[in-house]
Amino acid sequence: MSELFAVIMAGGSGTRFWPASRRAKPKQFLAIAGERSLIAQTWARLDGLVPVERRLVVTAASQAELVRRELPELPAQNLVLEPLGRNTGPCIALASATIARRAPDSVQVVLAADHVIRPDEAFRATLAAAAEEARASGALITLGIRPTFPATGFGYIEADEEVARRAGQPVRRVARFVEKPPRAQAEQFVASGRFFWNSGLFVWRTDVIERAVGEFMPDVRAALERAARGEALDGLYRALRPVAIDVAVLERAPERRMLAIDYEWNDVGSWDALAAVNAPDAARNVATGGATLVAEDATGCIVHGAAGELVALVGVKDLVVVHAHGATLVLPKDRAQDVKKIVERLERERPECL
Amino acid sequence: MSELFAVIMAGGSGTRFWPASRRAKPKQFLAIAGERSLIAQTWARLDGLVPVERRLVVTAASQAELVRRELPELPAQNLVLEPLGRNTGPCIALASATIARRAPDSVQVVLAADHVIRPDEAFRATLAAAAEEARASGALITLGIRPTFPATGFGYIEADEEVARRAGQPVRRVARFVEKPPRAQAEQFVASGRFFWNSGLFVWRTDVIERAVGEFMPDVRAALERAARGEALDGLYRALRPVAIDVAVLERAPERRMLAIDYEWNDVGSWDALAAVNAPDAARNVATGGATLVAEDATGCIVHGAAGELVALVGVKDLVVVHAHGATLVLPKDRAQDVKKIVERLERERPECL
Repeated sequence: MSELFAVIMAGGSGTRFWPASRRAKPKQFLAIAGERSLIAQTWARLDGLVPVERRLVVTAASQAELVRRELPELPAQNLVLEPLGRNTGPCIALASATIARRAPDSVQVVLAADHVIRPDEAFRATLAAAAEEARASGALITLGIRPTFPATGFGYIEADEEVARRAGQPVRRVARFVEKPPRAQAEQFVASGRFFWNSGLFVWRTDVIERAVGEFMPDVRAALERAARGEALDGLYRALRPVAIDVAVLERAPERRMLAIDYEWNDVGSWDALAAVNAPDAARNVATGGATLVAEDATGCIVHGAAGELVALVGVKDLVVVHAHGATLVLPKDRAQDVKKIVERLERERPECL
Repeated sequence: MSELFAVIMAGGSGTRFWPASRRAKPKQFLAIAGERSLIAQTWARLDGLVPVERRLVVTAASQAELVRRELPELPAQNLVLEPLGRNTGPCIALASATIARRAPDSVQVVLAADHVIRPDEAFRATLAAAAEEARASGALITLGIRPTFPATGFGYIEADEEVARRAGQPVRRVARFVEKPPRAQAEQFVASGRFFWNSGLFVWRTDVIERAVGEFMPDVRAALERAARGEALDGLYRALRPVAIDVAVLERAPERRMLAIDYEWNDVGSWDALAAVNAPDAARNVATGGATLVAEDATGCIVHGAAGELVALVGVKDLVVVHAHGATLVLPKDRAQDVKKIVERLERERPECL
């Protein structure tokens, strides 16, 4: 039977978790949902489903050392380095080419390093069912998240009726992918029951995705072939346009199917998301990163700091309070997105703080 | 003419500026009003009035090293060490005994190390006038602060009419000292125009205060005499009751006079006081301790952190935000007093953080 491989995409470099996340240490390396980093939890989530020698991690060359430190089990030859980020299209094509050389007759699950998904068992069951479906049908499979609110920050998948069941889980044909919708449309999507959030998690047969890369991203395919013949990946990569796999391949491929995640999933997009993915105390405060919180008459706050750090709050409500790398950030939870305003200022005035 | 000496009392060990102030580094050593520590500013305030060889600093033995570091000009023999704190009565008696041995025919100005007083020239003029009055009249002189609001956190001096002028400054006889009053009484005091805050700053002749110590603090006098004969100060000090000089001596002495400080004076009692003693930016934010503030839509905040530290605020108002020694504190300015609630919790739960 075809072997199951996993690709963990760990190339993100966001600053939405500044000052804890830095250019040199993005979100997936932070312990913002539990005691271990998000990437270490993603790795452990595969235990019992994909053996470590078949797990690949794709990351930026600059983050190789961080990945090795967080994932000591990762075999050296399974660390795939991108010279620079070109979005998920080239990233997935690069990983797939590596797998195709080793096991052309395999199935891949492609995961983001920085999502919270619980419980692990439920997710493994979904991946196993999706792998079975991919193997049997040859479809490109996206995992869809049953929406819990009319989010405008995610793309949506419109799902047709059930076409199969795998290990008891319904498989639906994908009608279409929709980019991040305006609020009113998102509300219609959620009300319809036919729409799911696009998680960016995929399952497919190696031969199928390889064929799709050749067909829909011929420039990427050509670059990877030249790299395989010895040309430096750096220059080849630089010449590629950044493109998401969704846009390049999934929106155009003929046979797309979806399995649903209807348990906890969170892409932990900003500081305020930490309230949802950590157990709050009796005053609805959440302390992450190992820091100790001492709160007096303070409620609904999210704090983050390294182990050994203390955060003391008195008489405040619904604040985010972070100390990391010599910087302290304080802002209301409902303005967590505005970290980017600070980051933009720092880019102009103090790039060394990013 | 009798020489002028200065005594700087630097024994405070408060925690009202936690986490910047710690048991081992109290407020007088912090740069919370300008770029230099309060004690270094107090020292410099005497320039041109009292030569360095006649400036004494009384501090706890545990803080000797900090004092030496902040005041490199301080002659070694002018650092007077208390084995432990016993309030201002024994502290002043100890310093005065040291001066009496060196210059019995002198005048002393007794200052707190942790007050903000501006401008320096005005304060020197007041001290010079008070010294002249002390020299001529033999009165014990307290400096009174013209009240700017009905404070309930200070003791008050009720002043009789002017009895003299020294260097153009009115000298009043003290009618009585009043302990911290309730609000309604404080309002009457301020309205009357006859009441001043008790600054805890004193000027007197060495022979006069020596006689007063003998009369009103005979146990302290006896302890200091035994110490002078070679007994260990530690045990003697431990046996003393803590007592304020105001209560022990000034409330009971026959001839007490007052000169007024009617320029800037602030005893910087808590974090919110930093707004008054530092220049605010256009959004009324104040950054102290050397930290850099990056504020977006944040107003009226007080931040404190070491040089090199960054504090970023978004969308918050009238907060105190401090990072120091591995701890972060956030609380509203109008609850600055409640730092003590945190300190009390830490005393029970994490004394190592104090």
